[in-house]
Amino acid sequence: MADLGRRARAASRRVALASAENKNAALRAMAASIRSRADAILAANAEDLADAKAKGQTSAFIDRLVLDPERLEAIAQAVESIADLPDPVGRVLARFERPNGLKIDRVATPLGVIGVIFESRPNVTADAGALCLKAGNAAILRAGSESFRTSSAIAEAMGEGLERAGLPADAIRLVPTRDRAAVGAMLSGLDGNLDVIVPRGGKSLVARVQEEARVPVFAHLEGLNHVYVHGAADLEMAKSIVLNAKMRRTGVCGSAETLLVDRACADTHLEPLLSMLLDAGCAVRGDEAVQAADSRVTPAEEGDWRTEYLDAIISARIVDGLDAALAHIETYGSHHTDSIVTNDQATAERFLAEVDSAIVLHNASTQFADGGEFGFGAEIGIATGRMHARGPVGVEQLTSFKYRIRGTGQTRP
Amino acid sequence: MADLGRRARAASRRVALASAENKNAALRAMAASIRSRADAILAANAEDLADAKAKGQTSAFIDRLVLDPERLEAIAQAVESIADLPDPVGRVLARFERPNGLKIDRVATPLGVIGVIFESRPNVTADAGALCLKAGNAAILRAGSESFRTSSAIAEAMGEGLERAGLPADAIRLVPTRDRAAVGAMLSGLDGNLDVIVPRGGKSLVARVQEEARVPVFAHLEGLNHVYVHGAADLEMAKSIVLNAKMRRTGVCGSAETLLVDRACADTHLEPLLSMLLDAGCAVRGDEAVQAADSRVTPAEEGDWRTEYLDAIISARIVDGLDAALAHIETYGSHHTDSIVTNDQATAERFLAEVDSAIVLHNASTQFADGGEFGFGAEIGIATGRMHARGPVGVEQLTSFKYRIRGTGQTRP
Repeated sequence: MADLGRRARAASRRVALASAENKNAALRAMAASIRSRADAILAANAEDLADAKAKGQTSAFIDRLVLDPERLEAIAQAVESIADLPDPVGRVLARFERPNGLKIDRVATPLGVIGVIFESRPNVTADAGALCLKAGNAAILRAGSESFRTSSAIAEAMGEGLERAGLPADAIRLVPTRDRAAVGAMLSGLDGNLDVIVPRGGKSLVARVQEEARVPVFAHLEGLNHVYVHGAADLEMAKSIVLNAKMRRTGVCGSAETLLVDRACADTHLEPLLSMLLDAGCAVRGDEAVQAADSRVTPAEEGDWRTEYLDAIISARIVDGLDAALAHIETYGSHHTDSIVTNDQATAERFLAEVDSAIVLHNASTQFADGGEFGFGAEIGIATGRMHARGPVGVEQLTSFKYRIRGTGQTRP
Repeated sequence: MADLGRRARAASRRVALASAENKNAALRAMAASIRSRADAILAANAEDLADAKAKGQTSAFIDRLVLDPERLEAIAQAVESIADLPDPVGRVLARFERPNGLKIDRVATPLGVIGVIFESRPNVTADAGALCLKAGNAAILRAGSESFRTSSAIAEAMGEGLERAGLPADAIRLVPTRDRAAVGAMLSGLDGNLDVIVPRGGKSLVARVQEEARVPVFAHLEGLNHVYVHGAADLEMAKSIVLNAKMRRTGVCGSAETLLVDRACADTHLEPLLSMLLDAGCAVRGDEAVQAADSRVTPAEEGDWRTEYLDAIISARIVDGLDAALAHIETYGSHHTDSIVTNDQATAERFLAEVDSAIVLHNASTQFADGGEFGFGAEIGIATGRMHARGPVGVEQLTSFKYRIRGTGQTRP
């Protein structure tokens, strides 16, 4: 692992200085290598699948692991689409000229070496490696052990693409062992050769990384997201947003987990919202007022307000106005994504200003919490920390910056 | 300490939402309180000074610690000048409208609670507290124990100013004990109530914080800065920049520690540069070629290339062209501030692009590494890490951001 870190650091210096054209050529060559090695990748995947089935993995697990020619083509296209993004390195983020004539530019630079620890989704090998490279970084990828053969085959294709473009294969490396000790070595920072870690997977993985990592982490532990239907909400809009926020996909981090209905509109809005959810197959756990509005509602316990269901379940309660909604979200939320539905502009602006979450929305579904929906092209994850990256982490957030100062012989008085 | 953290967190929520006018009123009230409490602050300082002298502290130490009415007025004026800076909170950092009509703003928000650990410089209590507040953050300040009474008196004035403006005094608190265990509590993050730590002081303090902190750190361990006199450098400009970079103030982190002279101009430039430095009272430790150019040069050991002298001493060597200069800086530098002197634009651009330091300069002195010189108004320190803040850390770098999305009922397909 120490050698992997040193080689990644050396490779990071080379890709940091590579031109946009060179990196994009590498990305296109990676996609070509994924296509030309399709048979080998699919064969490796078949072996991983056979093992996973023999171990009795769930059908959901198998579905995430399985590749077919269509999915593999989608992976190759995703890598190509990253080549089409604007290059985030070298952007002038700020420029100022000083009275003494010094011209100071704040310019985007790569972060360095990025570690990505993920579970058994083969596409992450390609997505994460490609995103890191686009931003001029080297990547060390740790795949779930059940997808080890598949991820290895994809990583080899990525390395081949890099070398065909004249860049070092060490810029994207899969940890070459299933040994769990490798994760610990990454969390300790590989002797200073890892600058940031991105965990992608379930809550226990993220919690461990957040707890143990000695380097910065871009991650969210959970998306305990709220939709607050304010007293001045349009009922039809509220129904449409709540249904989409909860039920479009229940397993994504941007799905809503708690519905807050303002007492001011409860008489008119509560029952229609509940019956819509219940009729759509969503279980509702509510406070007493919510239970009284529909007999199918079951009682919410205190723990429900803290639970990210990631399922067709929602907790619901009545709140007395904006301040009570803000207090609930501050107490129980996870600073990920929260939305207000209202036709009152002043209330909306207070919600947008005061809710301390990475993403706050007015009259829109929480399921927009996604780098693609932001126009970032792709994301490596969503972060709820306040340092460096927050919200969807796209290629721009995978850069740092430095100051370039151009003078004509200036000295400091 | 746990209580201090909880109260700072609560106060941070209030100052995060305070208007620019409110925060500026508090800063001006703090300056007024510092002036009105001048007698008490100077009396406290006299007690600290008496103890320090009794303990036999150096005169340099005493000079940093001592306050007089003029210095105290300068402290008050520095706090007022921070009120005059533009408010960094709420700036729209990016704005994009999506094809579905969603309007997405990336808006600057405060970081949260900032811990500042510093040695016995009383002005840091006021400077750091004021900068943190300006950016909407709460601050927990740990002063050097020798300045404890002075810092406490200043912190009380800051708290009085906050309260006069209707903001919580808990937004700027000095750690109320000289107990060294308090530093350990801060490094562990105060139960999640500290978001970032800024150490200000000598290398051993910074090293300990970087080694032990479980929260992000904005700092630089050392400024091992280079001036590279390229073959196409103007001799007079090179002399002026080298003399200023080394000798203007030798104890600041932006001072030059190593002179690299290109072999291409050594015949004409080396001897004049060396005699200028030596005549100015700077000791020169050089490689063989440098020793041969002036008999006053003493031999450089390998360790000299790694030494931040912070004194009137410079190491000097001949390098064979830009690549050798880049390799030397990468091997021995500290990624702080490096400068090239040359009239060749293409070489300068390569140096600016390829040197991986927070600040890189062309034809200007390294001593410009300072937030004030950048126009930031004030800085809390200089960072050499790549995460979040890099270079001078002014009020802008003491903010995070979030996404505010305004819709008209959009749901995600």
